[in-house]
Amino acid sequence: MSKDVKKVVLAYSGGLDTSVILKWLQTTYACEVVTFTADLGQGEELEPARQKALLLGIKPENIFIEDLREEFVRDYVFPMFRANAVYEGQYLLGTSIARPLIAKKQIEIAEKVGADAVSHGATGKGNDQVRFELGYYALKPDITIIAPWREWDLRSREKLIAFAEAHQIPIAKDKRGEAPFSVDANLLHASSEGKVLEDPAQEVPDYVYSRTIDPEKAPDKPTYITIDFEKGDATAIDGKKLSPATLLAKLNELGRANGIGRLDLVENRFVGMKSRGMYETPGGTILLAAHRGIESITLDRGAAHLKDELMPKYAELVYNGFWFAPEREMLQAAIDHSQQYVTGRVRLKLYKGNVIVVGRESKYSLYDQDLVTFEEGAVAYDHRDAAGFIKLNALRLRTLGQRKKKLGL
Amino acid sequence: MSKDVKKVVLAYSGGLDTSVILKWLQTTYACEVVTFTADLGQGEELEPARQKALLLGIKPENIFIEDLREEFVRDYVFPMFRANAVYEGQYLLGTSIARPLIAKKQIEIAEKVGADAVSHGATGKGNDQVRFELGYYALKPDITIIAPWREWDLRSREKLIAFAEAHQIPIAKDKRGEAPFSVDANLLHASSEGKVLEDPAQEVPDYVYSRTIDPEKAPDKPTYITIDFEKGDATAIDGKKLSPATLLAKLNELGRANGIGRLDLVENRFVGMKSRGMYETPGGTILLAAHRGIESITLDRGAAHLKDELMPKYAELVYNGFWFAPEREMLQAAIDHSQQYVTGRVRLKLYKGNVIVVGRESKYSLYDQDLVTFEEGAVAYDHRDAAGFIKLNALRLRTLGQRKKKLGL
Amino acid sequence: MSKDVKKVVLAYSGGLDTSVILKWLQTTYACEVVTFTADLGQGEELEPARQKALLLGIKPENIFIEDLREEFVRDYVFPMFRANAVYEGQYLLGTSIARPLIAKKQIEIAEKVGADAVSHGATGKGNDQVRFELGYYALKPDITIIAPWREWDLRSREKLIAFAEAHQIPIAKDKRGEAPFSVDANLLHASSEGKVLEDPAQEVPDYVYSRTIDPEKAPDKPTYITIDFEKGDATAIDGKKLSPATLLAKLNELGRANGIGRLDLVENRFVGMKSRGMYETPGGTILLAAHRGIESITLDRGAAHLKDELMPKYAELVYNGFWFAPEREMLQAAIDHSQQYVTGRVRLKLYKGNVIVVGRESKYSLYDQDLVTFEEGAVAYDHRDAAGFIKLNALRLRTLGQRKKKLGL
Amino acid sequence: MSKDVKKVVLAYSGGLDTSVILKWLQTTYACEVVTFTADLGQGEELEPARQKALLLGIKPENIFIEDLREEFVRDYVFPMFRANAVYEGQYLLGTSIARPLIAKKQIEIAEKVGADAVSHGATGKGNDQVRFELGYYALKPDITIIAPWREWDLRSREKLIAFAEAHQIPIAKDKRGEAPFSVDANLLHASSEGKVLEDPAQEVPDYVYSRTIDPEKAPDKPTYITIDFEKGDATAIDGKKLSPATLLAKLNELGRANGIGRLDLVENRFVGMKSRGMYETPGGTILLAAHRGIESITLDRGAAHLKDELMPKYAELVYNGFWFAPEREMLQAAIDHSQQYVTGRVRLKLYKGNVIVVGRESKYSLYDQDLVTFEEGAVAYDHRDAAGFIKLNALRLRTLGQRKKKLGL
Repeated sequence: MSKDVKKVVLAYSGGLDTSVILKWLQTTYACEVVTFTADLGQGEELEPARQKALLLGIKPENIFIEDLREEFVRDYVFPMFRANAVYEGQYLLGTSIARPLIAKKQIEIAEKVGADAVSHGATGKGNDQVRFELGYYALKPDITIIAPWREWDLRSREKLIAFAEAHQIPIAKDKRGEAPFSVDANLLHASSEGKVLEDPAQEVPDYVYSRTIDPEKAPDKPTYITIDFEKGDATAIDGKKLSPATLLAKLNELGRANGIGRLDLVENRFVGMKSRGMYETPGGTILLAAHRGIESITLDRGAAHLKDELMPKYAELVYNGFWFAPEREMLQAAIDHSQQYVTGRVRLKLYKGNVIVVGRESKYSLYDQDLVTFEEGAVAYDHRDAAGFIKLNALRLRTLGQRKKKLGL
Repeated sequence: MSKDVKKVVLAYSGGLDTSVILKWLQTTYACEVVTFTADLGQGEELEPARQKALLLGIKPENIFIEDLREEFVRDYVFPMFRANAVYEGQYLLGTSIARPLIAKKQIEIAEKVGADAVSHGATGKGNDQVRFELGYYALKPDITIIAPWREWDLRSREKLIAFAEAHQIPIAKDKRGEAPFSVDANLLHASSEGKVLEDPAQEVPDYVYSRTIDPEKAPDKPTYITIDFEKGDATAIDGKKLSPATLLAKLNELGRANGIGRLDLVENRFVGMKSRGMYETPGGTILLAAHRGIESITLDRGAAHLKDELMPKYAELVYNGFWFAPEREMLQAAIDHSQQYVTGRVRLKLYKGNVIVVGRESKYSLYDQDLVTFEEGAVAYDHRDAAGFIKLNALRLRTLGQRKKKLGL
Repeated sequence: MSKDVKKVVLAYSGGLDTSVILKWLQTTYACEVVTFTADLGQGEELEPARQKALLLGIKPENIFIEDLREEFVRDYVFPMFRANAVYEGQYLLGTSIARPLIAKKQIEIAEKVGADAVSHGATGKGNDQVRFELGYYALKPDITIIAPWREWDLRSREKLIAFAEAHQIPIAKDKRGEAPFSVDANLLHASSEGKVLEDPAQEVPDYVYSRTIDPEKAPDKPTYITIDFEKGDATAIDGKKLSPATLLAKLNELGRANGIGRLDLVENRFVGMKSRGMYETPGGTILLAAHRGIESITLDRGAAHLKDELMPKYAELVYNGFWFAPEREMLQAAIDHSQQYVTGRVRLKLYKGNVIVVGRESKYSLYDQDLVTFEEGAVAYDHRDAAGFIKLNALRLRTLGQRKKKLGL
Repeated sequence: MSKDVKKVVLAYSGGLDTSVILKWLQTTYACEVVTFTADLGQGEELEPARQKALLLGIKPENIFIEDLREEFVRDYVFPMFRANAVYEGQYLLGTSIARPLIAKKQIEIAEKVGADAVSHGATGKGNDQVRFELGYYALKPDITIIAPWREWDLRSREKLIAFAEAHQIPIAKDKRGEAPFSVDANLLHASSEGKVLEDPAQEVPDYVYSRTIDPEKAPDKPTYITIDFEKGDATAIDGKKLSPATLLAKLNELGRANGIGRLDLVENRFVGMKSRGMYETPGGTILLAAHRGIESITLDRGAAHLKDELMPKYAELVYNGFWFAPEREMLQAAIDHSQQYVTGRVRLKLYKGNVIVVGRESKYSLYDQDLVTFEEGAVAYDHRDAAGFIKLNALRLRTLGQRKKKLGL
């Protein structure tokens, strides 16, 4: 806490917690605070954050607000979806993928304004602190990092509120008490954890969900859509070209309406414990299914299987915060190389929580009807080849079998 | 075709195709034919197969009929589900996993009756021929294999029917024409491919499905169930102990009723081409979700992530027919080692195609509420540890950053 | 054998075997034969091959001779060494890596001269037939492939000689009898297998080696050299810039003189059996050690470990002949991405079979003396960080330990 | 440092550093110190450690001395060699593998004497602190760990000596000054790092080596030996059965005499920086070569390649200190499963730093001379099978090629 800091760039949401941090930084470090508020599609107005920062004494030139939605989807979400990344078989990494971009922007602002420190509002028990800080350190190795939740003694809600009151920080009425759970949100997902969710034996109460309607309340008729892909990235819905962020927003709407993308999960954090979270990734869930769908006809088996083998490591790297690490970039290079012809159209059926790929077509299709048809055709497939194929694949197994037999094993 | 064969054990379903094979073997090889008909839960009576075999001149002592359902689920399906095996991200390997068992039984019968050959009805373009034959060769390296579909010239439906008529093989009325698709079924799944399914751009017609009702026609109210696990295997539904096969059958019922487990897929065959298939795995789909659910609280992160990394290779081995290969057994040894404490209860919600894990509990749970709670407790977690953890994880990234900076890269 | 072929491009060495093939193609297929003879550094004159082809009736415009040494090392050997590729822990893939290039050139010539077929002299039991043919098929899917060793009945040496005599093919005296082993050679290596080497319990006789002197006869004084690398490729020896092929040739000389690079191995062939081979890779052995040496200071741990994990698969792909497969290219993309700063100088000691890296330096070095020194300095390393690092890494193990203790496991 | 500790078990070598730690623990924590001194084959007498402990006031019943050599080799070294474990392509993990055993013994003693803490002499920058402490925590999650080098302020040699003098700790004359490098040793290896070794561009001076003679000074005649294996473990040298530790000691002698097993390496530490070390693993180097040799004829390709793919992860786990982690045990289960028939005899030639496998034989051999011979025999290998094998392996590549051609890509 005795670090000597002159100017700090804070990831600032405008909410109570980061407002307390703002004030705490000012009072504890006696340093100039620069706020950075980003629109990643969390669904909140940004202007109130500016007003609040001004109110808390931040100089206008020290308030940075930026709409990052397109950059977020184009340079972070889409590359990750090219990898079909899923953590622990289920989690679409909605929180994880946003942190590196925020970290990058904070460092850029720090360079611009000559700040020597950055700060964030992530707690000391979670993954986000790691993701932020690995990003900071990778991009600016000599930066000083202030993680208030690891440093201060405002460990209970009461203390936090008391600090806020003592420093004239406005407190919204509904923030006075304990929140029944904590939330993170961006264009890719919303997540909730803590409090009422902490018993993994208990079903998630319906009021925790915010991005999707209950599948039971979704329309009784399915919705059919098409998604077009170019080189592994979605580019159009129902034939209409859309920018990355607009496209994801549209998929979110479609997913929300059809109750798609809810996930109730116990996951393993990088910091070592298990935690129970609830995720809603409506658009992402559709996107993943569609991407696998277009890959299924345009990607060669060797490439597809290699991707499947590399994916768990890729997902782990993203989850753990190693976005800017060379090994993530190496895997990305391999994955991107595979996406050159992942271009075409997928047709999907959305219905009460289900995303079903019902059709795929592509001028790059490797699916060859002549090859698979049961009717014998003028095709480059000779049934007799299969015998040789099997016999040489079996050769080592036969040798093993002979050993067993010979030695009576 | 000039192989000298005295006695052949045929995997015999009693249907038209294998009846033609039976007769063709007799006429082409002038050899004694032994039939083996297994109940793997495909949902067909076995006695008609016996009658038909007798009718076709098979001696009573050469007709083998066996109920393999318990062995199938206990020794093949369950070990595979311990691995959470999914091929190409989606396929639950329902056909693949049945072949090794049939191959094993044929070889056992061949040893018993002194047969020098085995035969099967798989075509020359598919994966099943590989799976059967790798099994045969691994278990009896000197066996002779007869794969009629690769040898004969009955390449069209007409020729097949003509052969059947010429040899007095009874032909069911609905078998005279071309089937609109071909089907495989066992206790784990039913699959269809070919003909009407061959255009991957066209939605699978509803009449192709046989194991599940359409999610749109499933009940409007969700069904809640619990599944108990012991050492990674399911042992009870709603608290009621069931044998492996009975349990899977019960899950199939539940899945069927709730429209669960349909899959429309373009997959990559081992023999080199893509094919489009439709799979229904109602019980298996529930089982996989439940197994991941109980693992989520009982399996350590290191074990879980290693399993996820090994899974694609495991699934590929099963898909390709390498069940009896040493590397599959090695992976199984690793996986089984991890399942010692995968014991507990999972609660699931089944609703119109959705399987949702809503609760998990276990006396072996590694989920520790004290560790994750946001409230500071008397727990072995010190927020300050996170700083050191992050700094050492970041060290190499900082060194990379310093290099970049120093050299202006 | 009844394939209808008009013009075939044969990989022609000028030796007895491929001369017999040449004639056999003419007589069996009644087709025009185009010969392709490449200099890959096998150490043989190419002009005699031209003379022999002319003698056997090949038209001058159908004789292609090309010096591929630079292309071979630059585009095949070097990329492979960037991966540190070693098959089954030991084999440097000297034969494997040459086949794709020959295949590629044959196809290019086939396109140019309008040939509809290609042919090679690899036997039906080895890996090389696979490597050649996977290359042919990948680059020209409709090509016809003639593999005489799989087709003809010249299965014994006697028959081969008789055919040669009958067709006026000159036979060198020493080729009349059985060769005591068969040899493959190029700029990267020489290999021998067969006959006298077939008993893996027997030591390889010294006369089999041709590229290296016996370590026991190598100089008693060590030789010191430096190798410079740029982006992962060797560029200079002892400070002197050399082209890829010249550099490898120079390393071969150095290796030969110091008895470096001999390998006696039982390996697993792709076609399913084990075989015993003897390899000499003098320059390559030095190159691999040097490359690992420069990587050790310029490559980040994450990148290095990922490379090590991917390497066995990469080596298997090259060994099995999948050079032109998408998954090899994907891995290459990942590997090449890592090599951007693998630039610097390695100092090596060569002595009687030993290659010892004794020094490495680079302006891109990530080795930071300040970080590792036992003396405390002004460095970004705080001993206390290690406590937190360890405690969070231990957290899941402690939770496992607590479970054990609580339940008395 | 304010931890409340009653009794601590110290890993005590009897040397100056751990003697200072002993005294520092007594004075700082005012706690009872229990010493544990193990013989892991480091080559030092243990009785002086007992005398010194007594001299420093340790009660006789608190002094534990144990010969762990057999357990070390049997339960740690041998399982690791079954995996052919090599870290970063080169390091045989000699230090890494000893730490878990020491940790285990300390915890056993702590349980026995009712100690609430353990302590070790590893520094705050190295890997050993991690290895010790992950072991402690895994085996006794509630243990208190004291790592003096991370806590005290005796950061320079002078301060350490001053503390020793102030507390009447005897100081050997040669320990007064700075050691030119630091050493770790056990039956598997000796390593050195620090000081004179810190510049990776400079060759390791010959006086640093202690376990091997300089290859240049080794005998001019090679030494031939045989090693017998049973289920993957070495059991005899030159036909003479030896216990694990005796066998490794014998291999060390042989390796020493022939200058085998020196390694000069820049490696990546788990704590994040690169370090330069020098390792001597004479017996282990021979053992690894021999083990690969016997595996080459007894292990199936599928098993061998899976082992090669898993190895880097296994080695990383051991290096990082995760010996007692479930994922290491899972990998071990897979590896051990593969070793059932890794039984037989390997013949090796040792010569001036070289270890050359010159022969292998086993009654479990999978090497089948009939299969590989160039002569056609009565073998289960039909050259024509290769054509089918290749064509189906090529099918997907041809489809890719057709796509390219059709679309002019």
